[in-house]
Amino acid sequence: MPSLISHFSVPLAIAAVLSLASGASSDEAIAIDDVGGFHVGGKAVVLEGMPIEEQTFTNGMKPIKVDPNGTFVTGQMYVGYVKLAEPVSDYPILMWHGGGMTGATWQDKPDGGAGWEKYFLKSGYSTYVSDAVERGRSSWSQFPEIYSSDPVFRTLEDAWGAFRIGPEGGWNADPAKRDAFANTEFPTEAFVQFSKQFVPRWLTNDDAIQAAYDELVSMVCPCIVMAHSQGGNFAYNAALNNPELVRAVVLIEPSGAPNPGNADAAKLREIPHLVVWGDNIAQHPVWPRLTEASRNWHDAINDAGGHFDWLDLPVAGITGNSHFPMMDKNSDDIAALMVGWIQATVN
Amino acid sequence: MPSLISHFSVPLAIAAVLSLASGASSDEAIAIDDVGGFHVGGKAVVLEGMPIEEQTFTNGMKPIKVDPNGTFVTGQMYVGYVKLAEPVSDYPILMWHGGGMTGATWQDKPDGGAGWEKYFLKSGYSTYVSDAVERGRSSWSQFPEIYSSDPVFRTLEDAWGAFRIGPEGGWNADPAKRDAFANTEFPTEAFVQFSKQFVPRWLTNDDAIQAAYDELVSMVCPCIVMAHSQGGNFAYNAALNNPELVRAVVLIEPSGAPNPGNADAAKLREIPHLVVWGDNIAQHPVWPRLTEASRNWHDAINDAGGHFDWLDLPVAGITGNSHFPMMDKNSDDIAALMVGWIQATVN
Repeated sequence: MPSLISHFSVPLAIAAVLSLASGASSDEAIAIDDVGGFHVGGKAVVLEGMPIEEQTFTNGMKPIKVDPNGTFVTGQMYVGYVKLAEPVSDYPILMWHGGGMTGATWQDKPDGGAGWEKYFLKSGYSTYVSDAVERGRSSWSQFPEIYSSDPVFRTLEDAWGAFRIGPEGGWNADPAKRDAFANTEFPTEAFVQFSKQFVPRWLTNDDAIQAAYDELVSMVCPCIVMAHSQGGNFAYNAALNNPELVRAVVLIEPSGAPNPGNADAAKLREIPHLVVWGDNIAQHPVWPRLTEASRNWHDAINDAGGHFDWLDLPVAGITGNSHFPMMDKNSDDIAALMVGWIQATVN
Repeated sequence: MPSLISHFSVPLAIAAVLSLASGASSDEAIAIDDVGGFHVGGKAVVLEGMPIEEQTFTNGMKPIKVDPNGTFVTGQMYVGYVKLAEPVSDYPILMWHGGGMTGATWQDKPDGGAGWEKYFLKSGYSTYVSDAVERGRSSWSQFPEIYSSDPVFRTLEDAWGAFRIGPEGGWNADPAKRDAFANTEFPTEAFVQFSKQFVPRWLTNDDAIQAAYDELVSMVCPCIVMAHSQGGNFAYNAALNNPELVRAVVLIEPSGAPNPGNADAAKLREIPHLVVWGDNIAQHPVWPRLTEASRNWHDAINDAGGHFDWLDLPVAGITGNSHFPMMDKNSDDIAALMVGWIQATVN
């Protein structure tokens, strides 16, 4: 029987929402020191033995010969950053998206509202928004020559159920016919706009993704790591791999976690963890099972004397959140809870 | 014989470099109003008839069934933006990268120096840095089911010559054995780091790319469009498609241009154009031919009474620039010339 005890004070957090709301939503200018993007990690590989082709690169120009053989870099990761001139914390927030997504997860919402990158900047935290290896500006590599499997593309039909906007099979091209959960906070009319963020993924690159995240942590931390869905397992492991550099782990619906039988939870005794869960998990055939890994890791860390808070939003009275609370209509409220927790917990 | 007359005053520009250098390189904080990213364009497509597969999404979890059939969005484009609190111009700069690249082109240089996004922000211009359709955070689609061709991956060997770091065949894995042009401003020791920005491209998506750029222009302009290499042809056409919204076109080594026989240059009479060329073009087997399209379009616009400036950097006494002047050691100097031209030309 997993422990249901939480170190997290929901009343404290709700108070934080109220005290922070004006600051994070103000129209005041943000003073930044630096903005840009760079790549970390990766290694050179050489491909040989493929035939030369002729291809036309610019309309109206003659074709030129293209030799696909040669040297390529694979496994690198793109990181965009915004550094505040006067952050409230010495620790920037590293924002790691989920599977089949990119750093766009943290930017504008599909209904046009402000995303969490901006919310956390306005709350005083510098941000590093990366694209996992193989996705977005990180680039991807030839398959099967370099990646050992084919890419996976997510359908809108699958996403509707998997992301708990509504029951499986509830998607319909006609917005009036979409079957959403009655209490959903997701802007269902903006679901196609949301799906523009989807990118292909592979299921065989976890080691390269973890290596790039670990290299980023070594480069820019001490920091707070915030991760969503598939990013959660990488964040848990980043803390295990560099416990002296990760000062807090904030997880939104992590899809996996280290196994306490293989990993030493005691290494994380000094690193506060928070996990946030949305609504309607029991309505989905897979999500109840996916939460178990984090529950076991939560128990292991707390049993070792650590501090892992478990925030089940519906239990706290906040209902209707999907798998993407950063896209939901009440996204600012959830972000404010997280800021409140960080301010109360991270030294 | 093409005209060699230029409306652009190089001495004026050099003066601008000197007057602007302190402003754009200062350590003062940048006051921003807004930062984020969104997607424009795209359309839903439905794929049918492919077999269902079983795949494992998270290490240690049981495989689940994946149905590749269903609805996908294709043709969308990602746009990141930084809006200044007090821009010097009403017109933001839209920055469009070249082939096989993403918006990372405009961010940190491979040697760690500041890129042009930051330079133009510090010079007082808000920026929109996009990833062309099929690249970066814009995502890409199944081939051959949605895209009609295979992707093309650029080797480091090819890039070394094509980007005019040195002669073709000059790349070597050993930095000490790389054959670079004697006067190159490219940081050759950072070439592998630079190559981490490369992404696969397709040669059959030009119409979708142009449509997304045109939609962006309709959404956020009036503006200045700045484009590199393959992006140049899209920028030329964006001005033709929305001449009332594009207030200037700034091109860096455009690889193509509209054909004056098919396109009406007179529509662009009121839109100043600047093209910037680097060094060692005559040393390359293809680049002299690629410049001809822009030369013809330059002549057609000026013959129609327009204002198209042709800045050949070596002719102006600035030598050693590669195909990527925004990566070169003297990138700030080139950016300052462009800022000077914008300030002198755009009302």
